[in-house]
Amino acid sequence: MGEFDLIARYFTRPARRVALGVGDDCALLAPAPGMQLAVSSDMLIEGRHFFADVDPEALGHKALAVNLSDLAACGARPLAFTLALALPAADERWLQGFAGGLLALADAHQCELIGGDTTAGPLTICITIFGEVPAGDTLRRSGAQPGDDLWVSGAPGQARLALGALRGEWQLPAGVLAQLRPRLERPTPRVALGLQLRGLASSALDVSDGLLGDLGHILRASGVGACVDVDAASAPLRVSTAPWSTQMSALTQDDWLHCALAGGDDYELLFTAPPARRAQVQAAAQRSATAVTRIGAITAERGLRLVDGQGAPVAGRFASFDHFAPAR
Amino acid sequence: MGEFDLIARYFTRPARRVALGVGDDCALLAPAPGMQLAVSSDMLIEGRHFFADVDPEALGHKALAVNLSDLAACGARPLAFTLALALPAADERWLQGFAGGLLALADAHQCELIGGDTTAGPLTICITIFGEVPAGDTLRRSGAQPGDDLWVSGAPGQARLALGALRGEWQLPAGVLAQLRPRLERPTPRVALGLQLRGLASSALDVSDGLLGDLGHILRASGVGACVDVDAASAPLRVSTAPWSTQMSALTQDDWLHCALAGGDDYELLFTAPPARRAQVQAAAQRSATAVTRIGAITAERGLRLVDGQGAPVAGRFASFDHFAPAR
Repeated sequence: MGEFDLIARYFTRPARRVALGVGDDCALLAPAPGMQLAVSSDMLIEGRHFFADVDPEALGHKALAVNLSDLAACGARPLAFTLALALPAADERWLQGFAGGLLALADAHQCELIGGDTTAGPLTICITIFGEVPAGDTLRRSGAQPGDDLWVSGAPGQARLALGALRGEWQLPAGVLAQLRPRLERPTPRVALGLQLRGLASSALDVSDGLLGDLGHILRASGVGACVDVDAASAPLRVSTAPWSTQMSALTQDDWLHCALAGGDDYELLFTAPPARRAQVQAAAQRSATAVTRIGAITAERGLRLVDGQGAPVAGRFASFDHFAPAR
Repeated sequence: MGEFDLIARYFTRPARRVALGVGDDCALLAPAPGMQLAVSSDMLIEGRHFFADVDPEALGHKALAVNLSDLAACGARPLAFTLALALPAADERWLQGFAGGLLALADAHQCELIGGDTTAGPLTICITIFGEVPAGDTLRRSGAQPGDDLWVSGAPGQARLALGALRGEWQLPAGVLAQLRPRLERPTPRVALGLQLRGLASSALDVSDGLLGDLGHILRASGVGACVDVDAASAPLRVSTAPWSTQMSALTQDDWLHCALAGGDDYELLFTAPPARRAQVQAAAQRSATAVTRIGAITAERGLRLVDGQGAPVAGRFASFDHFAPAR
């Protein structure tokens, strides 16, 4: 099957929001008046971002999900995306699965595939996504203020906990793995929450490289520090696996904290907001049907302090979390 | 060197036309009022689109040039681009050269790098480019009308002629190779011509896979046929190498026609316009300092006819050009 057949067969859909669809040299996009276009690109490579034997349908989902998550982090509403795809061979079953997972998530967010490129090569997926956001209303990394609460969505660490079981780092009860594996393989981009946080959060990003590492980006961009309650940050993960807790006693406190604080791939939103807006943040979470947890506060003093639920400093064995080094 | 250092060191520049630059989860773009955003993505892979030993500066140039060429084909003015880059290793000398070639061409077109992604992996370059074009004024593939002239810019086949010499298919005088190799390695996107053709050309695209193969896209999209004068189409190539003609007698007529009609990688514009607009097309070419040549006409009868300079049908040995098969 040639390149043009491939495009036609699996990726051509009627144009909706755009003036030109797949087929011309360019696609055309027009954001609504008063709106800016938010743009993000991600590249996923076999062996680095996913395993060769990954379910193609899950891969299609995840490839778009990580890009939708970037829009969520900016408070942008998804509009459209381009897909550049390098494939070792035109495997129809693979393509059908991949396109199915990709386009199902795209449809769920009314996000239109408007163009791209296919070529032979090592399996590589590059998506550039477009969203719109009212001019001046974008969530950024640079707005955190001393005294702001630090919040995170969902249960950070779920993807890492599942990954550790798949890698053989630890064992998980089948029920836990069945629940958490989708968090790793089919993450839910927090688009609805991002939209609700417009004008409410003082800063935001999505956690792809680990909570503390990505928090470092906010702290540097905002010129502030933070104090993180590691018990609060790991509580959602513990709660989500509580029914199986007696079967998970082999997991150490370090394991739990490592998953929650340094595990990537959850694509949760990490954001800050003034304490006076706690009720509004909770209301925004409810409207977007996304749990949020307050896990610390922004400080004027630079650097990152880790404390436990009683406010006591967490011992030096977690110093490695303090480097702000990306996990990959 | 980590991912973030790489981005900071070679690709971070002050934001100009955009509201946010490299560093946040998304970049922001706002086309001017009345303008649509033209979007195109291309992926270049080592071993397929370029050789491993290519000069990184030339590669940086070409990676952006092929994307600028897509904007040119739509008559769009370049605005900005994102870069997703997979690298086997962070080789500083390579990165310096690549970024230098890329950003020099970007500056020449006032096209701003606004975001992207870097990762480890087989050398892969994915650029998504943005331009703006007045709503309704975009050059498309679908507007060719029976009776329209068929035009091409530059001297199609130059890149293929150089490639053949590098591959050992034929020998070229040193002077010819010195002149043509830059056409292969550092193609000139015809952005200026594309802007001049707005509202003038009835259809257009850029030739990346060979003149006749790409012409097929216009014919299919427009529901028409064409008659191509192969002597006219290959004349610019012959003229551009005329001073060395006595040293190139080993090249057969087939070689010349193959280069001009089926050679890709020139990134010339192929376009149609009514005969009544010949003087305007020539004036547009002059204003953009880009030579154009009339090489045939659009016909109501579907299919592609090839004729020589006297209008005589070209014999069947060129039938292979008639398949509209992409050269790659």
